[in-house]
Amino acid sequence: MLIPLILSGGAGTRLWPVSRQGHPKPFMQLTDGQSLLLKTYLRAAAVAQGGQILTATNRDYFFMSKDELTKARVGDVECRNTFLLEPFGRNTAAAIIMSAFMVAEQFDRDACLLVLPADHLVQRQEAFAEAVQNAEILARQGRLVTFGIVPSMPETGFGYIEAGPNIPPGRSVLRFVEKPDVETAQKYVSSGNFYWNSGMFCFLAGTVLNEFALHAPDIFQTAQACWQELRHTTKADANMLEIPAKHFEQFPDISVDYALLERSANIAVLPADIGWSDIGSWSAVSQLIKADADNNRGIGECLFVDSHNIFAQSEERLIATVGVDDLIIVDTADALLIVPPDKAQDVKKVVTLLKKQNHDAYKLHRTVFRPWGSYTVLEEGPRFKIKRIEVKPGASLSLQMHHHRSEHWIVVNGMAKVTNGDQELLVGANESTYIPAGCSHRLENPGILNLVMIEVQSGEYLGEDDIVRLSDKYGRCQ
Amino acid sequence: MLIPLILSGGAGTRLWPVSRQGHPKPFMQLTDGQSLLLKTYLRAAAVAQGGQILTATNRDYFFMSKDELTKARVGDVECRNTFLLEPFGRNTAAAIIMSAFMVAEQFDRDACLLVLPADHLVQRQEAFAEAVQNAEILARQGRLVTFGIVPSMPETGFGYIEAGPNIPPGRSVLRFVEKPDVETAQKYVSSGNFYWNSGMFCFLAGTVLNEFALHAPDIFQTAQACWQELRHTTKADANMLEIPAKHFEQFPDISVDYALLERSANIAVLPADIGWSDIGSWSAVSQLIKADADNNRGIGECLFVDSHNIFAQSEERLIATVGVDDLIIVDTADALLIVPPDKAQDVKKVVTLLKKQNHDAYKLHRTVFRPWGSYTVLEEGPRFKIKRIEVKPGASLSLQMHHHRSEHWIVVNGMAKVTNGDQELLVGANESTYIPAGCSHRLENPGILNLVMIEVQSGEYLGEDDIVRLSDKYGRCQ
Repeated sequence: MLIPLILSGGAGTRLWPVSRQGHPKPFMQLTDGQSLLLKTYLRAAAVAQGGQILTATNRDYFFMSKDELTKARVGDVECRNTFLLEPFGRNTAAAIIMSAFMVAEQFDRDACLLVLPADHLVQRQEAFAEAVQNAEILARQGRLVTFGIVPSMPETGFGYIEAGPNIPPGRSVLRFVEKPDVETAQKYVSSGNFYWNSGMFCFLAGTVLNEFALHAPDIFQTAQACWQELRHTTKADANMLEIPAKHFEQFPDISVDYALLERSANIAVLPADIGWSDIGSWSAVSQLIKADADNNRGIGECLFVDSHNIFAQSEERLIATVGVDDLIIVDTADALLIVPPDKAQDVKKVVTLLKKQNHDAYKLHRTVFRPWGSYTVLEEGPRFKIKRIEVKPGASLSLQMHHHRSEHWIVVNGMAKVTNGDQELLVGANESTYIPAGCSHRLENPGILNLVMIEVQSGEYLGEDDIVRLSDKYGRCQ
Repeated sequence: MLIPLILSGGAGTRLWPVSRQGHPKPFMQLTDGQSLLLKTYLRAAAVAQGGQILTATNRDYFFMSKDELTKARVGDVECRNTFLLEPFGRNTAAAIIMSAFMVAEQFDRDACLLVLPADHLVQRQEAFAEAVQNAEILARQGRLVTFGIVPSMPETGFGYIEAGPNIPPGRSVLRFVEKPDVETAQKYVSSGNFYWNSGMFCFLAGTVLNEFALHAPDIFQTAQACWQELRHTTKADANMLEIPAKHFEQFPDISVDYALLERSANIAVLPADIGWSDIGSWSAVSQLIKADADNNRGIGECLFVDSHNIFAQSEERLIATVGVDDLIIVDTADALLIVPPDKAQDVKKVVTLLKKQNHDAYKLHRTVFRPWGSYTVLEEGPRFKIKRIEVKPGASLSLQMHHHRSEHWIVVNGMAKVTNGDQELLVGANESTYIPAGCSHRLENPGILNLVMIEVQSGEYLGEDDIVRLSDKYGRCQ
C-alpha cells in the first residue's frame, strides 16, 4: 500500500505578486489552467492507483484546496483524499510525523508514505512512476528514501545530496550539503555523485515513526500526545482531521531533513531524472514557456519591440516593451513586478517590505476566495463599492446583516435564492433585488451553474467588518 | 491687441499609453492635475489680459477641450475663447492662416497673433510674459517672429534657428536647420547663435496674410475661399467656427515653418529662456518629477528595491521594481509600457504596431469621454458588461433605445432624471432603476453635482453599436 502525502504549504514569496498569503504558490495556475496543487494531486493519484491520498495544509486553505482537488476530471484516476489541517505552519517534520501516526493506526504500519511537496513540478510522469516504484523497494527494506534529482546545471539555490556506494535500485547517502557556491556546484555536477535534494521522500509509516523515536524523541512524544488527542475527536472515516493548536504549537519549527534525515544512518537516495522543477522563482516559471525568435516569452497580450529575453505575464492588460532586454514582468489586477532574471530571488524583499508596511498586497488579491466561492472588488469610491460575487452551486453565504450599508444585487449568470428579511425569492439572470441596511439576508445558489452577481454597496461605511453573521454553514459565526 | 492662438493638435504617440488618439497629449494631466491644454490656456490668458483667445483643434476634441478650459479657476484671468474646429488634421499652416483671416475680419488686421502649441510646457511665466512683450514689439515692426529657446543641452531631437545681427529686442534669422547630430548640436550650443525652434510665433494678422499671399499664394487662395464660405455660415459672436471639410481638404498638409517662415526674408527670432519643454517623450515627463536618493521617480504607489534611475507612473496599481536600473514604466488601466530612457523616442513604434493591428489601445482608453461626461468599462463577460457612468451637471445623454440589451442603473452619487418609455422619474443616490431592451430612454443630470452611476448591461449582444439615437442635444442623431 502506497499513500502519497501532499505537503501543501510554502508561501512562495519569490513568486509575488501572483503567489500571496491568501492565495499561495500551490494554487498558482500554470498556462494549462492547472494549479501546482492539482498537478501534484494528479501525479499522486496516478501512483496511488485509486487508493488513499493525504493532503497536509493550513486550515485556512481547506476550502480552496478542496475546490482544487475537485477539478480532477473524469479520466483522471480517482482516489480518496483526507485532509490533515494544521492550525499554523510548522515546517515538514510535524506534518510528516502526524501523517505517519495516522497512517500507522488507521491503515497499516507497513503502508508506504510518499511525501510530495505541492508546489513543485514534475514533467516526466512515467519516469516519476518508475522512480516511485524503485523508492518503494528501498523503503520496504526499512530505509528512509530521499529522491535525488540528477542535476542539469550547477544550481546554487538548492541543497545537494552526496551519494555513496550503490544500494540497488538506489545509492547510500554520504552526506547532505547546503547550497554551494558556483565553483563547488560545478564540481558536484561533474562528479556524478551529487543530486539535488528535492524534498520528496518515501518510507514506511512504521520506519519513520521508529526513526523519529530514536533520533528526535521530543518530536515523537509531541506527535504521540497530539495524535492521542486527535484520534479521540475524529471519526475514522472523516475526510478532514484538524490538528489541535494546543498540541501543534509544541512542535519545533523544523524540517524533516534537519530533524531526522541528517541524523539517521538509515538513508538511501533514489536518483531521479523526472523533469523536476521547484518553480522557485519567476525565472523558473519563465523556462516553462516557449520562447519566440528574440527569446521573449509572453503570457497574455504582449508586444515586444526591439526587446530580447523578456518574460511578461499579464492577466488583462496589454504589456508593451520597447528596447529592453533581460526582464521579468508580472502584472496582476492590483500589483506589477519588474525584475531582471538574475535578481528573481530578491522578489521576496518586496513581500518583506509590504508586510512591514502592513500593505494588503502581500497577502490579498483583488479576488478573495471564500468557502462559498469568491468576490472581486471592481471599484471603490466615496460611499460605494462594487463587487463581482461568484457563488458555487449549492453553496450559500451566511445569514447576515449590515448596519451601515445597503446592497443592490444584479444577477448576470445563474440563479440566486435570496432571503431578504422574512421574504424568500428567486432572482434569475438580468434580474435584481435590493437589501436595505439593517435587514437580515442570505444569498444562496440553488442551481447547478455558478451564480455570478454584481453587488453595488452604498452607505457611509463600507468596511468588510460591518457584518453580523447570524448563521453560517461554514462555522464562521463564532 | 494681442490674441493668443492655441494650436491644440498633435497625437503625442511617444507618450502612449497615456496619450492616445481619443485622449491626446494636450489633455494629458501633469501631477498638479492640470492638463497641458489648460496650462497653455492659462498662460495665454495671462498675456491676453482679459481679451480674446482662439483655440484651433480637431472638432472631435471640441467638448473635451471646452471642459478643460472651464477648469480655469476663479482668480485666473478670464478671457473669451473662440474655437476654430478642423474637420481633420492639416498641420499648422492651415490653422494659422484661417485664424489670421478670422482675426483680420472680426477684430483687426493689426491685431497681434501669438501662436502657442497646446502640448508644450513653460515653467517661467514671468519670463514668458516678457518674451511675448518683446515679440510683439518686433511683430508690430511687420516681422514674423519666432521664439528661439536658449538651448540648455545639445538636444538632437529639435530643429535649430541660426540667429544673425541684432534687431532689438531680438535678432535676425540666418537660417532654420533640421535636427542635427550630436557633434553639430554641441557646436550650435557653444556658438551662442543657435536656438531651439519652439513652434511659438508672433505676428500681426495682416503681416502673416500678406506674407502668405507673397510666398504661398496657393495656400492663401484656399484660405480665402474657405473663409468666404465660413463667414457666411457663422455669426460674428459664435464661440465656435467649424471649418467646412470640402475647403479644408484643399489645404496641403504642411507646417507654417515650411510653408512660410523658411521662404520669408522678414523673420526675426526672439531669444527666450522661459523654462520651456516640449514634453516630447516620457524622458521629458520624468524630468518634471523630483527624484529620490537613488534617482528614482514615482507617481502613484511605487516600491523601488535595489533600483536606480527608474521613472514609474501608475494609476491604481502598486508597481514594484527589484534590482533594475534605467527604466521608464507607465501603467494605465488597460496597457503597460516599459522602455529605457534612451529609447523613449521609440514608443511611437508601439502605436504604429497597434494601429496596424487595429487594436483599441492605440486610440481608446478604458475611460471614454463624451460630450455629456464619460464612461469607464469596469468589467465585461459573457452576456454582461459593467460601466461606471459620469454625467456632468445639466448634461443629458441622447434619447436612445437598444434592441439587444437591458440596463440596470444604480445611482451612487448625485441625482438622475430618467426617462423610461412614457415615464419620467428622479433616481437619487442608492436607488436604482431598470431599462428593458426595446424601451426608449434618456438619462439626464438635473443637479449641480456630478452624477455617478453604475450600469449593468445584460443581454446577448452588448456592442456599443446597438444604439438607436432618437434625439440628441449634441447633434449625434444623423
